[in-house]
Amino acid sequence: MLIVMNKNSATEEIDNVIAAIEERGYTARPIPGGDRVSIGVLYNKGHVDPSLFGSLPGVREVIPVTKPYKLVSREIKPEDTIIKIGDVSIGNGFLTIMAGPCAVESEEQAITIGRHVKKAGAQFFRGGAFKPRTSPYSFQGLGEEGLKIMAEVRAETGLKIVTEVLDADKFDLVEEYADIVQIGTRNMQNFSLLRRAGKAKKPILLKRGMSATVDEWLMAAEYIMEGGNSDVILCERGVRTFVRHSRNTLDLSAVPVVKKESHLPIIVDPSHAAGFRDQVSPLARAAVAADANGLIVEVHHQPEKAVSDGSQSLYPEQFEVLCEQIRAIFDIFNQ
Amino acid sequence: MLIVMNKNSATEEIDNVIAAIEERGYTARPIPGGDRVSIGVLYNKGHVDPSLFGSLPGVREVIPVTKPYKLVSREIKPEDTIIKIGDVSIGNGFLTIMAGPCAVESEEQAITIGRHVKKAGAQFFRGGAFKPRTSPYSFQGLGEEGLKIMAEVRAETGLKIVTEVLDADKFDLVEEYADIVQIGTRNMQNFSLLRRAGKAKKPILLKRGMSATVDEWLMAAEYIMEGGNSDVILCERGVRTFVRHSRNTLDLSAVPVVKKESHLPIIVDPSHAAGFRDQVSPLARAAVAADANGLIVEVHHQPEKAVSDGSQSLYPEQFEVLCEQIRAIFDIFNQ
Amino acid sequence: MLIVMNKNSATEEIDNVIAAIEERGYTARPIPGGDRVSIGVLYNKGHVDPSLFGSLPGVREVIPVTKPYKLVSREIKPEDTIIKIGDVSIGNGFLTIMAGPCAVESEEQAITIGRHVKKAGAQFFRGGAFKPRTSPYSFQGLGEEGLKIMAEVRAETGLKIVTEVLDADKFDLVEEYADIVQIGTRNMQNFSLLRRAGKAKKPILLKRGMSATVDEWLMAAEYIMEGGNSDVILCERGVRTFVRHSRNTLDLSAVPVVKKESHLPIIVDPSHAAGFRDQVSPLARAAVAADANGLIVEVHHQPEKAVSDGSQSLYPEQFEVLCEQIRAIFDIFNQ
Amino acid sequence: MLIVMNKNSATEEIDNVIAAIEERGYTARPIPGGDRVSIGVLYNKGHVDPSLFGSLPGVREVIPVTKPYKLVSREIKPEDTIIKIGDVSIGNGFLTIMAGPCAVESEEQAITIGRHVKKAGAQFFRGGAFKPRTSPYSFQGLGEEGLKIMAEVRAETGLKIVTEVLDADKFDLVEEYADIVQIGTRNMQNFSLLRRAGKAKKPILLKRGMSATVDEWLMAAEYIMEGGNSDVILCERGVRTFVRHSRNTLDLSAVPVVKKESHLPIIVDPSHAAGFRDQVSPLARAAVAADANGLIVEVHHQPEKAVSDGSQSLYPEQFEVLCEQIRAIFDIFNQ
Repeated sequence: MLIVMNKNSATEEIDNVIAAIEERGYTARPIPGGDRVSIGVLYNKGHVDPSLFGSLPGVREVIPVTKPYKLVSREIKPEDTIIKIGDVSIGNGFLTIMAGPCAVESEEQAITIGRHVKKAGAQFFRGGAFKPRTSPYSFQGLGEEGLKIMAEVRAETGLKIVTEVLDADKFDLVEEYADIVQIGTRNMQNFSLLRRAGKAKKPILLKRGMSATVDEWLMAAEYIMEGGNSDVILCERGVRTFVRHSRNTLDLSAVPVVKKESHLPIIVDPSHAAGFRDQVSPLARAAVAADANGLIVEVHHQPEKAVSDGSQSLYPEQFEVLCEQIRAIFDIFNQ
Repeated sequence: MLIVMNKNSATEEIDNVIAAIEERGYTARPIPGGDRVSIGVLYNKGHVDPSLFGSLPGVREVIPVTKPYKLVSREIKPEDTIIKIGDVSIGNGFLTIMAGPCAVESEEQAITIGRHVKKAGAQFFRGGAFKPRTSPYSFQGLGEEGLKIMAEVRAETGLKIVTEVLDADKFDLVEEYADIVQIGTRNMQNFSLLRRAGKAKKPILLKRGMSATVDEWLMAAEYIMEGGNSDVILCERGVRTFVRHSRNTLDLSAVPVVKKESHLPIIVDPSHAAGFRDQVSPLARAAVAADANGLIVEVHHQPEKAVSDGSQSLYPEQFEVLCEQIRAIFDIFNQ
Repeated sequence: MLIVMNKNSATEEIDNVIAAIEERGYTARPIPGGDRVSIGVLYNKGHVDPSLFGSLPGVREVIPVTKPYKLVSREIKPEDTIIKIGDVSIGNGFLTIMAGPCAVESEEQAITIGRHVKKAGAQFFRGGAFKPRTSPYSFQGLGEEGLKIMAEVRAETGLKIVTEVLDADKFDLVEEYADIVQIGTRNMQNFSLLRRAGKAKKPILLKRGMSATVDEWLMAAEYIMEGGNSDVILCERGVRTFVRHSRNTLDLSAVPVVKKESHLPIIVDPSHAAGFRDQVSPLARAAVAADANGLIVEVHHQPEKAVSDGSQSLYPEQFEVLCEQIRAIFDIFNQ
Repeated sequence: MLIVMNKNSATEEIDNVIAAIEERGYTARPIPGGDRVSIGVLYNKGHVDPSLFGSLPGVREVIPVTKPYKLVSREIKPEDTIIKIGDVSIGNGFLTIMAGPCAVESEEQAITIGRHVKKAGAQFFRGGAFKPRTSPYSFQGLGEEGLKIMAEVRAETGLKIVTEVLDADKFDLVEEYADIVQIGTRNMQNFSLLRRAGKAKKPILLKRGMSATVDEWLMAAEYIMEGGNSDVILCERGVRTFVRHSRNTLDLSAVPVVKKESHLPIIVDPSHAAGFRDQVSPLARAAVAADANGLIVEVHHQPEKAVSDGSQSLYPEQFEVLCEQIRAIFDIFNQ
């Protein structure tokens, strides 16, 4: 951490800051620079709270230098994390495809879509049983019945299951059925849920919060890893910006940044980023070209009858074409 | 809802959209306009999901017209909601001041600050016992001990208590001690927590999510009201933007917009919006000048020793001056 | 345009709005819908200013339905615009690569880089002679000398030249040397410059403003086309968001949206979007995978000695690898 | 500037960075801190370009410490700039009110509004003769005729005139008529126009760019001051965010931040921030409560007939009430 003092700040102000640093057990190193002094905070283990020093007299600015995360950091663990679920591997060198409807609506709907996406090459079936809905009056998902239907999809097609959990109460239940438990964008900083996920025996798919920085997102993953669960898959799904032609703005820079900072796998959700079907395939291909480790895509055979998010779901035939394209793109960099 | 068709769209496309609208039980009204037809969706009760129609052939755009919320709406209940807690009223015509430290650190700290803010004119003591922290390694609050200390502050000073709850598990406990239960910005769309708050016997202070629209925020309040709890106080606390000179960007337009759309009270948190002490008083005065029904402000007698958010806490003397100023501003519009 | 009235608005309010619409020469069509009336504005030629009606008594909201642009719209001209410059074509079905340093620094620098990018497969040399710089104290470009150096690069390598113009005063000069004249992100709504560009005899590369919507960007192109110059190439270069790990956030949804709305070509600048070298190649590949018609990329053989933007410039060897990758990606969709 | 190296970076990488710093004429000071070295760049006069060092091997991050601006900075000139125009002073201790229509439409319209705002207490008449319009088909202003009408308003009412200039070509003309020349939000980084403004003999009102940081805004003012014109008034007018209930989001934190960083006056435009009449008065009062040095407000006696921005214009009676309120608020802090 670097503490920048005002120009020509008084000696006692500087001494006071140094004393405050040392009182906390850190080492202070003053750096004179013309008419302004800065003070480095050294030998701190882990993150130092900037607000501790920002309010001292004579301080102009406090600049954090070290990153706040540990376990998720590539500096702690340089080699890639590869998560194995049965015969499927997720991480660098692999391209994992998860696909299915926004919400599980019925056995027939789920199995129909499951067969389509399996045939196109997906390894995971995605589907919502517990749905986070903006309105209390909207369809909230089939609940446990939805989980049971997904278990049938797995039995029928061999696809593995990824599905969302909304609260700690239902975690045991979801974990029993799912192969990967998803924590959604609105819960990325639901710290109680993250702690419970840290005790889970299944891998966690952690979606980025709608306006989360990469640091905050990695800190959310840190909660899970600190709790004992090392199998965390990050999922970029677009962030909220002033832009109105898409539901969110897909932040593909996050892919190389996360890969540099962390050893964890990162996949991309082009459907929630786009919000409109026409944009989904271009963004999906872009994500693979940017080196994402996989995709999670909404597919529905009758999107105009879907109970939610129909307008961003691909038709099965579109998804089939997409799968061929992204495998070809992936092969360009991974032969 | 208005469905805009492509220019020169085919008659069967238009008929198909009309059929889809009527299949859902709504009335379709085609509106020819030169070379483009739009179709109104009429007589719907409540919100219609735009994605139901956006994916039909020939549809260019779907434009929601009616608002999705009901119980929170001024169209349903035109008169202001005034929430009474003992002798304190919150809502139009009143100026409610809540103040205290970010986190309760000790009995001595809490009572010292409590006395200061009481003297300056606050009616509520704010303090965190359960703290949502970005890092799992940061101080997470004193928990139940913190709640007990706040109960002592109440006994000692007569101040009422507002404090945050992080999950449904601890709701009973927090509700037992608090006069107002706060749901924080990161939990604004934690729908399980909102449902629990709908069953609460205490008023809820609902902070706006970091990147929530006013519609989403009102829908979160709708969850609470729909559950049976009509005592919801909204709290604007700044939104995340590209701006870096403050922690968040305070969105004061939200005050008149919420007051127009809803009958619920709205207060403002200038401390988390600002992030820096120098900005807190100007933003606090601005909020009152924009007609907010009150403020929630961080105050600490030793901010440089605070365990969190020290750099945005006012000194007691600053808070005292601020209280005088805002009462004077309030009186300009409320004599 | 749709004008939504308040619930239960008075008949005279509705009549008043209808009169105002007809006074402007448009047709008003009231659409009753339960307890709320909406009024369609029909048979308008071109854009209707929403603010004309938003202030009338009883009006709740004014919703624009038709798009404000004409000449740039695919509804006016359905077939793709292909811009031919000598033997190079820009538009759908082609992949155009523009590359070079941020600023032209010397003849030796420019020719060295020109040879590198030519060899890798670029068709255009990009380089700044007039540089828009945030600080008046920074290097502002070599001016006409820079243009002359670029003419030598063209003579030496056969590359065509794209370079930025900052004001109408220097337009004649820049137009004399350039094959494509660039209007930068900070000038996207410099309407005087756009009008001058409308009289130019060279194609215009129009960068998207830092916080421009696609509608505003297309309206800027409309200024140029309305002035008589139909050869406009749009360039997405990232928008400003809360994100801090990249200089801007590349908005790849803009590619399919622009292609749907407009017949004009669209290319992508991954360098200014990224701001950091590590992100440039992933974003460049992503742009081509999202169907962009080309790229404009910063390349420098000695980025650590560059006078500006060194940290986002690719090394020539990186650029060579990138060119191979993007051609392979392009071929997947364009065989 | 602080250059943070990777953990355990090689000695030659560190030496290489030090050499690069010294080659540029600065002093390098390495700061060891556990397993990571940072290197301070000292004794630089003025701004150092971070991109010079960001691309060197082993460098993790480059953190600017000193601010890039000089002449606008309070560190260079601690005392407030007070701009005197005839008998009106603008700056700390004064409350300056500018008001009038978005566009000058006719002599009658301008004089009618001028008399209203004069009576309410405004010192300046604002009105557009050259209008920056998103669409080439919208009304572009009356041009010189508009300037002449404003000169009549001045003669008739005694109000001073503030009006916008769009390009260097028309600067002489606008400067001849105006008492303050406005540079609009879309031209904040039109560096040619800023240079011309630096030669002007009239004070400049510099609006903040739609997505400009305070640093970029102050650097735009630095261009003007560097050119020789010290009379710059900054104007906050809202920034572009994800928020849709207002046209822009008014960033009132900018007021205390600018006042701390700079000696220049800062006023606020609540009309363009709001975009809707209902929000204008609350935001205007908020701005004065946040210590702004004045306001620029749109007022129209027949907003429903205005050629532009009618829906955000106050009625004269609303403006009169507002003026009384803001003077009362101002007096609370300035007795």
